Amino acid sequence: MNPKAGIIIIGNEILSGRTLDTNSNYIASKLGAKGIIIEEVRVIRDCSKTIISTVIEFSNKFDYVFTTGGIGPTHDDITSEAIAKAFNVPLELNEEARATLARYYAAKNMPVNDAKLKMAMIPHSATLIQNNISGAPGFQISNVYVLAGVPYIMHDMLDHILPSLKEGKVILSKNIDVQIGESLIADIMTNAQNKYPEVEIGSYPFKKEELHFTSIVMRSSDESLLDQVYKEISVEVNNRYSL
Amino acid sequence: MNPKAGIIIIGNEILSGRTLDTNSNYIASKLGAKGIIIEEVRVIRDCSKTIISTVIEFSNKFDYVFTTGGIGPTHDDITSEAIAKAFNVPLELNEEARATLARYYAAKNMPVNDAKLKMAMIPHSATLIQNNISGAPGFQISNVYVLAGVPYIMHDMLDHILPSLKEGKVILSKNIDVQIGESLIADIMTNAQNKYPEVEIGSYPFKKEELHFTSIVMRSSDESLLDQVYKEISVEVNNRYSL
Repeated sequence: MNPKAGIIIIGNEILSGRTLDTNSNYIASKLGAKGIIIEEVRVIRDCSKTIISTVIEFSNKFDYVFTTGGIGPTHDDITSEAIAKAFNVPLELNEEARATLARYYAAKNMPVNDAKLKMAMIPHSATLIQNNISGAPGFQISNVYVLAGVPYIMHDMLDHILPSLKEGKVILSKNIDVQIGESLIADIMTNAQNKYPEVEIGSYPFKKEELHFTSIVMRSSDESLLDQVYKEISVEVNNRYSL
Repeated sequence: MNPKAGIIIIGNEILSGRTLDTNSNYIASKLGAKGIIIEEVRVIRDCSKTIISTVIEFSNKFDYVFTTGGIGPTHDDITSEAIAKAFNVPLELNEEARATLARYYAAKNMPVNDAKLKMAMIPHSATLIQNNISGAPGFQISNVYVLAGVPYIMHDMLDHILPSLKEGKVILSKNIDVQIGESLIADIMTNAQNKYPEVEIGSYPFKKEELHFTSIVMRSSDESLLDQVYKEISVEVNNRYSL
């Protein structure tokens, strides 16, 4: 069985349309390459109650939960406190996190002020997730991984935790891009899907330089089955439209 | 009170990381300009049970619900059927939708085959949402707006429905971008937030050409209050760092 994961994107700036979320796409790609399947993504407000209930729901529902956003030094960074509440543990000054911050800022000849120290406040019993970019760690508590919202910092944190995650059989994917409207080959895909229910077949229209294409995407962890479906659909489309 | 909305993005291709979702960001921006606030975004699988439960939950929770994806002609397009089930109405051939499709394809000298007709299967009692790009309409049932997943078609459908939506007081936004780490001005923002709880103040670090910046974002529907907070934060930052 493939491990299942949920992603929680925390931040008003995403919901207001100010910022395009690219974090969930990045996490999905990286986990997909390890055979971990993303079941759901939620984008929620910087609201303690919502964070708490969503984290509890996801933690119970999925093997892994990843959150991004809200662990910085400012007043609107409330994720760590909410996660502590979700797991019913105190939020406390983490000595290892404090030491990491102190080293990071000492190298820049900067004092660790109260705002910076806030980033060393970590739920009791959590494990730190280090990163090579900033001095402020993320953390893991139970099956929940709490990551930064800033993409390049989050990427680095994810690199730190990927090796420790349970892997599943990698879902391989093949696609056939044709310059044919999807309704003209819908029956071919339906037949293939009925014949091979274990292969996930999807159909995605797209436009390139004003020309219309359909991408037929096949996904399965079974490479030979995938090759088989790929071949059969190609032959059918070919027969009908002499590609 | 500002109307509240939720967005449901339906599609395995988003959750697999294959496709970056830009639809929720686009809808959020357009609705934001009308004073409609996005409370939550969910990205879910092409799974009937999940679509049904999410649509029911969102329809009860929010003033407006927008879905994208899964209303095309292929086997993996199951949104319309799921929405019909969510509202306990039959999915039926909609004569107006059929006529629109027929006109669209007649102009291209193409027959309306079974796959295309699938796009005229609409939940009973729904109102069609036309678009100027493809012949296939979206639809509205109760407070749920069911839109295409292909971005340029979705944009056109949204243009058709925007004028009919209840407006709220538009949330205005101002920002101050400074080349100062956010922890060095965290106290200034905390003080301002405490003094003006009605203004939403957020702080977002970003990198430009290897330089680090903080964007202080203030949001409120009260323009003079927003100007006031903008001025006060600017003066404080200025005093401390002589910008």
